[in-house]
Amino acid sequence: MFEFHIEATAANARVGSFITPHGELKTPVFAPVGTQASVKSLTPRQLEEIGATLVLANTYHLFLRPGDERVAKLGGLHRFMNWEKPILTDSGGFQVFSLAQINQIDEDGVTFKSHIDGSWQRLTPEKSIAIQENLGADIIMAFDQCPPPYEREVNQRAVERTHAWAVRCLEAKKRSDQALFGIVQGGVFEDLRTKSAEFIASLKLPGNAIGGLSVGETKEEMFRILELTNELLPKDKPRYLMGVGTPYDIVQGVARGIDIFDCVLPTRLARHTTALRRKDRLNLVNAMFAEDPQPIDETCECYTCQNFSRAYLRHLILAKEMLAATLLSIHNVYTLIKLTREIRQAILNRSFHTLLEEFSAP
Amino acid sequence: MFEFHIEATAANARVGSFITPHGELKTPVFAPVGTQASVKSLTPRQLEEIGATLVLANTYHLFLRPGDERVAKLGGLHRFMNWEKPILTDSGGFQVFSLAQINQIDEDGVTFKSHIDGSWQRLTPEKSIAIQENLGADIIMAFDQCPPPYEREVNQRAVERTHAWAVRCLEAKKRSDQALFGIVQGGVFEDLRTKSAEFIASLKLPGNAIGGLSVGETKEEMFRILELTNELLPKDKPRYLMGVGTPYDIVQGVARGIDIFDCVLPTRLARHTTALRRKDRLNLVNAMFAEDPQPIDETCECYTCQNFSRAYLRHLILAKEMLAATLLSIHNVYTLIKLTREIRQAILNRSFHTLLEEFSAP
Repeated sequence: MFEFHIEATAANARVGSFITPHGELKTPVFAPVGTQASVKSLTPRQLEEIGATLVLANTYHLFLRPGDERVAKLGGLHRFMNWEKPILTDSGGFQVFSLAQINQIDEDGVTFKSHIDGSWQRLTPEKSIAIQENLGADIIMAFDQCPPPYEREVNQRAVERTHAWAVRCLEAKKRSDQALFGIVQGGVFEDLRTKSAEFIASLKLPGNAIGGLSVGETKEEMFRILELTNELLPKDKPRYLMGVGTPYDIVQGVARGIDIFDCVLPTRLARHTTALRRKDRLNLVNAMFAEDPQPIDETCECYTCQNFSRAYLRHLILAKEMLAATLLSIHNVYTLIKLTREIRQAILNRSFHTLLEEFSAP
Repeated sequence: MFEFHIEATAANARVGSFITPHGELKTPVFAPVGTQASVKSLTPRQLEEIGATLVLANTYHLFLRPGDERVAKLGGLHRFMNWEKPILTDSGGFQVFSLAQINQIDEDGVTFKSHIDGSWQRLTPEKSIAIQENLGADIIMAFDQCPPPYEREVNQRAVERTHAWAVRCLEAKKRSDQALFGIVQGGVFEDLRTKSAEFIASLKLPGNAIGGLSVGETKEEMFRILELTNELLPKDKPRYLMGVGTPYDIVQGVARGIDIFDCVLPTRLARHTTALRRKDRLNLVNAMFAEDPQPIDETCECYTCQNFSRAYLRHLILAKEMLAATLLSIHNVYTLIKLTREIRQAILNRSFHTLLEEFSAP
């Protein structure tokens, strides 16, 4: 279980296979986000048709509602949301630090106010693991602190805390059918990132993640930190870049050695009337599409592009029909999943440099 | 084209087949409603999987947005909404009289204020047919006036107007690939309904509809009017009961000779967190379902019941996930379509009386 086989490489980019209790993940892989145990506006059947293999769900949200113990009673997250392929849960750390009103951060954990009912709640490394064990995802994440990227002192403390918490997560973990990934923090600071990557690598976990990127820093900074970090993380374990991204970021991330991506971007853009394409975006509310019989992308094989015009999608948007978000989500998620398939094929065919050339600018 | 074959009968109930340019409709048939060229929260693929064969779309809504000429430019309604099976459009009459702010009703037509942008618009029998010809449905409806059921004088004038308008619709109609159905009005008044049914029957249209029922009158009154009207409408043409209904109303309608039904009920209940079952409803927001691992209906073969628990559906509802409406709509529409299939089978098997017995009370 949790073996990672690298099948081909192109410089730092690699094609691999990660074995989980719910099947094989072909990497690079893009995971759509099912925050509350639902990838917004899509059924699991639609996700399967799109080609999704990995779905992310949020520990913070599911802890607060419906509650991890309830999910466990109902047979775990796979059964609950009817997704029989691999699931990854985050640790709750990112949401606590970005969504909740925090009362206290100390060495032991975080006390915060629920954004749902205002109740006081507490997350610690042990609690995060207990929740994630109740949820039962294939890949679970160590509880971490993700501060704004430019504040050195906060990042220094966050790195130390994240390391101590990672050790406690590893010690708290009981289930053998879940892979615990550690998270590298350190903002934009090379020395902190180096220290963090070396420490996380020393834990010899089945996979490693890079947190705290794509949260406000420039692309150049993100890529510099990515290069530095990936150089220090084990080559024989999957590397996961959290919360990324765009087609450009995915191709550039793979080029720097990333295997796993997740992002709310495709489903969030869909709910904001925007279609994602390889190199640009279309905001379908635009009047120029009112009588446009073309699909979003004539080269796209997704259900939406095979069957619906831009004019119809614009009509659904103006008429406030829910189907607009569904059809745009199908297209947007498909676009990113198709891109990862093309990346894998390009690495296998030794033509990844051509794809990289195509994505040389954002 | 538009041949109607009756394959079996059980007293007034019948199993038939109505041939349209987009294929055969097996009757009795239930049509889900796609008001704005979308059956709310469902893709056409999901509708096909559910077994839908006929979809209704609203002339009033599509005339105002995106505009019937625009739909025609984009290849007609089948192409626009990607529904290659039969479509029925209503005449706009019912919506004008129920949704719009009316400025004037005269013998020629109705002037009203759009509920979308407040602009003044006018519908006449000729205009309704022109719009419906632009939309291109297989079954189109004569422009009618549908008044409240208990006001005799208004109903008397409405019947006369509806008759004159039906004749004008027939004269205005140009396309031969659309079946124009007439509409019987007359409220709860037997003499008006008799007069109306006899007049509409005399037009020898390919199908006939009963309007102005299920709009506030009692079940007894509805069934009395239905029995009276169906006795006078041609037996060799399909009969359509507009805007109905519930499982009980459908079974009782078939028993009185109805072949076609449409209703927003299954999709509207779904958006209001309610699951429709043969004999009752479940409001899934109820706390009693919080840890209920059962499907909505354990005898149901729909995608929702085969894959999701009441507990998960309740979670989606509380979390305000769009997927709740989709999964409930799949189940609710399936329930009514499955019922029509069972009705057909029961009539063919000479066991319709047993089904009728099961639905002897609402």
